[in-house]
Amino acid sequence: MIIQLKNSVSDYEVTAIKSKDLGYTFNDIQTQVARYLICIGKKEIDLREIGFLDGVQDVHKVSDAYKLTSTKWKVGKTSIDIGDGIKIGNGDFQIMAGPCSIESEDQIRSTIAHLKQAGIKIMRGGVYKPRSSPYSFRGLGMDGLRLWYKLAKENGIKIVTEVMQVSQIAEMHDYVDIFQVGARNSQNFNLLDELGKVDKPVLLKRGMSGTIEELLQSAEYVFSNGNEKIILCERGIRTYEKAYRNTMDINAITILKDKSHLPVVADPSHGIGVRKYVDKIALASIMAGADGVIMEVHECPQKAFSDGQQTLDYKQSIKLIDKMNQARLLVEA
Amino acid sequence: MIIQLKNSVSDYEVTAIKSKDLGYTFNDIQTQVARYLICIGKKEIDLREIGFLDGVQDVHKVSDAYKLTSTKWKVGKTSIDIGDGIKIGNGDFQIMAGPCSIESEDQIRSTIAHLKQAGIKIMRGGVYKPRSSPYSFRGLGMDGLRLWYKLAKENGIKIVTEVMQVSQIAEMHDYVDIFQVGARNSQNFNLLDELGKVDKPVLLKRGMSGTIEELLQSAEYVFSNGNEKIILCERGIRTYEKAYRNTMDINAITILKDKSHLPVVADPSHGIGVRKYVDKIALASIMAGADGVIMEVHECPQKAFSDGQQTLDYKQSIKLIDKMNQARLLVEA
Amino acid sequence: MIIQLKNSVSDYEVTAIKSKDLGYTFNDIQTQVARYLICIGKKEIDLREIGFLDGVQDVHKVSDAYKLTSTKWKVGKTSIDIGDGIKIGNGDFQIMAGPCSIESEDQIRSTIAHLKQAGIKIMRGGVYKPRSSPYSFRGLGMDGLRLWYKLAKENGIKIVTEVMQVSQIAEMHDYVDIFQVGARNSQNFNLLDELGKVDKPVLLKRGMSGTIEELLQSAEYVFSNGNEKIILCERGIRTYEKAYRNTMDINAITILKDKSHLPVVADPSHGIGVRKYVDKIALASIMAGADGVIMEVHECPQKAFSDGQQTLDYKQSIKLIDKMNQARLLVEA
Amino acid sequence: MIIQLKNSVSDYEVTAIKSKDLGYTFNDIQTQVARYLICIGKKEIDLREIGFLDGVQDVHKVSDAYKLTSTKWKVGKTSIDIGDGIKIGNGDFQIMAGPCSIESEDQIRSTIAHLKQAGIKIMRGGVYKPRSSPYSFRGLGMDGLRLWYKLAKENGIKIVTEVMQVSQIAEMHDYVDIFQVGARNSQNFNLLDELGKVDKPVLLKRGMSGTIEELLQSAEYVFSNGNEKIILCERGIRTYEKAYRNTMDINAITILKDKSHLPVVADPSHGIGVRKYVDKIALASIMAGADGVIMEVHECPQKAFSDGQQTLDYKQSIKLIDKMNQARLLVEA
Repeated sequence: MIIQLKNSVSDYEVTAIKSKDLGYTFNDIQTQVARYLICIGKKEIDLREIGFLDGVQDVHKVSDAYKLTSTKWKVGKTSIDIGDGIKIGNGDFQIMAGPCSIESEDQIRSTIAHLKQAGIKIMRGGVYKPRSSPYSFRGLGMDGLRLWYKLAKENGIKIVTEVMQVSQIAEMHDYVDIFQVGARNSQNFNLLDELGKVDKPVLLKRGMSGTIEELLQSAEYVFSNGNEKIILCERGIRTYEKAYRNTMDINAITILKDKSHLPVVADPSHGIGVRKYVDKIALASIMAGADGVIMEVHECPQKAFSDGQQTLDYKQSIKLIDKMNQARLLVEA
Repeated sequence: MIIQLKNSVSDYEVTAIKSKDLGYTFNDIQTQVARYLICIGKKEIDLREIGFLDGVQDVHKVSDAYKLTSTKWKVGKTSIDIGDGIKIGNGDFQIMAGPCSIESEDQIRSTIAHLKQAGIKIMRGGVYKPRSSPYSFRGLGMDGLRLWYKLAKENGIKIVTEVMQVSQIAEMHDYVDIFQVGARNSQNFNLLDELGKVDKPVLLKRGMSGTIEELLQSAEYVFSNGNEKIILCERGIRTYEKAYRNTMDINAITILKDKSHLPVVADPSHGIGVRKYVDKIALASIMAGADGVIMEVHECPQKAFSDGQQTLDYKQSIKLIDKMNQARLLVEA
Repeated sequence: MIIQLKNSVSDYEVTAIKSKDLGYTFNDIQTQVARYLICIGKKEIDLREIGFLDGVQDVHKVSDAYKLTSTKWKVGKTSIDIGDGIKIGNGDFQIMAGPCSIESEDQIRSTIAHLKQAGIKIMRGGVYKPRSSPYSFRGLGMDGLRLWYKLAKENGIKIVTEVMQVSQIAEMHDYVDIFQVGARNSQNFNLLDELGKVDKPVLLKRGMSGTIEELLQSAEYVFSNGNEKIILCERGIRTYEKAYRNTMDINAITILKDKSHLPVVADPSHGIGVRKYVDKIALASIMAGADGVIMEVHECPQKAFSDGQQTLDYKQSIKLIDKMNQARLLVEA
Repeated sequence: MIIQLKNSVSDYEVTAIKSKDLGYTFNDIQTQVARYLICIGKKEIDLREIGFLDGVQDVHKVSDAYKLTSTKWKVGKTSIDIGDGIKIGNGDFQIMAGPCSIESEDQIRSTIAHLKQAGIKIMRGGVYKPRSSPYSFRGLGMDGLRLWYKLAKENGIKIVTEVMQVSQIAEMHDYVDIFQVGARNSQNFNLLDELGKVDKPVLLKRGMSGTIEELLQSAEYVFSNGNEKIILCERGIRTYEKAYRNTMDINAITILKDKSHLPVVADPSHGIGVRKYVDKIALASIMAGADGVIMEVHECPQKAFSDGQQTLDYKQSIKLIDKMNQARLLVEA
């Protein structure tokens, strides 16, 4: 059960609600937007009994394992403001493009020029890279991020990049517009807790074999710590099929959009993971309901740090962006 | 290696080719369309050495596990004529709609009327139903098929329906336009062998956990027995995710279209398996490259034999068909 | 619900039972052993109401999707007599060993000599081989089987071999002691139906991505057609892990033994599929409760028709058999 | 390539080795035990060229993605000393038993008494619990751990418990004997890095859909940061099968023991996850080569914090321990 509290609710009123003997435990949650009581328990109660209490704005029964991220209480879609009027969700669509890893000033400049030409406002790229092997390149770290920030800022481009651990949140905070949580940290609950205390949007990737329900529960961690600005991301799951990198689960996009009010983006580059197939999977994702697409693009994919076999070159990128815009028109029609 | 033989090739010439000491085994294949020698072996040879032999039209190295179904030798796409000018593949798109099971004359008439109104030319439906439990309804069998055939014929509608075993091929032959092979029979090699000797198209579903390569190898069974008219079908795979019925593998559509010249259709009804999501997955499949969509439709899904939770009613069907046609325009543009 | 009928039940009594208006459908089943009515329906009824009817021996509620294969009605374990006092199940353990494919008279003779030395009474081997590619060797067929039968018979060795289609059952019947159904035919319901009409044991392999419930439902096809002599087989499932051939699902052995009264055998050769690991997985299977182990053995694995990377040589075989016998002692203790 | 350096190696000698123009990058690693240079690159070189350099003890080519955790350079098995002569690996077998969560002083005392009676020296239990939902109980934290430590210490019992984030390492350090890394943190590389700087053993669980190779690469993070005391743990993977909690991958135990010199333990409680099946899977794990078993035990499983459906009671625990000891005798024979 979710009790939405009035903005004007007093502590006295909250205490009164909690002291009702409902057989529930109460989680008192204050976000940037509103205050909620999440009530966990199994007893059947008459919602009206709660609805008439002072300080209560609305009350909803939510049977899902996730609560605040569910459409069961919030039917309208969430719009997230990334800054300077750039929005995602509830009708606003965004493409996030850029390299796998931030490599150099030249690379950043080149990418930004490409994004501006293509009308893209959000740049992706990694400065902290999770790598299976300890002997692989792990990214340029804060030096890379500061440089990137300076150039992006000058050009009105927003930054989405991965944060890997709690201690990085504070140092990265002023330089990122969206904190990305990678698939491997999808159930790093301490990291999610801390990102719930931040006032910047969080892009949360589905785990490598994470269920749709688990993704929404992970988002619930962020939300219940105070941050309502969450973007969900489908990036492919692990299955027996090895003809591609991951099984991009287009179904999940459709279901997430139905089960949750949060925006959902697709990452076909890491999903199918093969350059020549990225366009079709990006377009399919849009038809399935995606509010955005993350894609890897590099001036010269063959020279990118990571192997770059999923990365588009600028020409391919421009062509796909054009098609995605057309697909969006069809979806909106 | 595939050696395409000239139409005019003589047995003498074929014998001469085979007698070349290449360290290969030869499979001599005569289809409705042409004659081929499929050569299996590992020795490196100079293709020109073969290309200059009498009776040889062309020769191709095909490293894939599948041969005749590969784009490695046939770059152009295959178009399949289902009869009366109804084609699929190589630019032609077809919707195949109808109930899970053929139930009654009324149901058939109602479905046909719906298809005609919607401009659909191929009707799907089961008369032999594979069921996990021996105690479940297994379909009306030949009685249902003969009735269906009569009504379909009168209305210019083509029939696609599942054949489950070799002994059914002969009795069904005159009443079907496309033989469907279900997911559970995807590697029923004896059935595939026999369908290769038939002159009607075969719609071959991917196995429940079949790989893309295995699907193409199963198609190779049909092709190498003489029948080039094969339609591949993605219908969802088994994964750990249980938020839907199967993980409709949109990626597979894109890859099959790239790896093979055969047409590919999507079955979102059995894929995601939830009525309210079928439309988005159908549209996504089209963007991924599908040459057709199979969908379940019933006048009253709640009354359908099987539970029908993936089945659209007529109103939903009309709406989706309209959207699919628009999506096709975008793909063709 | 399962109604066990008395051996002395009259048709009149059966008709009287069926005419009770229970809201159930009745499946009247006569096996080699007994007669049953399988009643499918959802209505709650008082079992005693049935239990007191004439001709009824016992009545059981079975909520499982499978019925006659369930322990819900038959708590004691099933023992299957393969002939000449060779039994499996209910305390009797059998090893079935032999090559992947039957290749030649020499190979059969050599294998039989090895089995006799090791005290093994059942020989496995394929004469009809399901192969992903139509261009692969498909086995020696009936010629191989007849030869094998002659040599096996002379030596008191029983034969288990795969049947791939309905039309092979009759021709193979007199030459096999156990009909094997392969993973790819695990849901070939027509084949299962026909094997239910045969008086020889059926060894039924789990499908490549078959669930435990589906395996028991497939066994139900055989049972409900009249054949109670069914041996279940775990042979590995498809998962994302590629460090071995299949994920041998040891858990399934334990669960099948709990859910069903039928004997269960393990096939570690096709399960983990790597020679040097077969022994440990065989032993683990025994601890998990297996009533038997199928294993591939060849005088010279490197020269076996199939690649043979899962096949033991005679020395390895002897060593493993000795360990398996010790493990059985521990299980029985 | 791994270059093992002599204990007496001088910095001058190391510099000389690194300055050889091999086209390799060098990772200079100092563990509790020895110093290594891990050389990453693709050039073929003559190992003897390195072997003769001053300061080099030995040099090995290791083609695996993991290096120091591979048997390719260290054929003998690693033995880990948990303190007071309690060892695991290289012939020493340990059972780690205890509740899912540490709940109370009474519960700890009761568990310790049970362990001592059964001859078990290591107690498992969670004080920091990773939970899918933010509204679930997350464990007693440091208060619980300090209490547990006091009682365990008095009784000569060692503690293994999960650490979830970097900041917990320091505070937990003095109270744990083995740091456990849970499945969800299996690729939390920052946590692995930091645990590599600690002088206590790390028990590393396989990720929910982690490959065997990824598990060894995660262990490589710990090892390459200086900590050679790593215990690998198989705890079940995610597959399509839902008849049990996870697919306990017994195969992985056998393969890990072959590919790595590190000890491997099995966690059947979290693997199959059903109380009545835990015993058979534990025994199967031992036959597959496990050096230890972790199991959940509780005085009254029904009253345990988590649902406890995988938890044994004391009577079941005693019975299983006895059987495990017998199984070990068979393995050692």
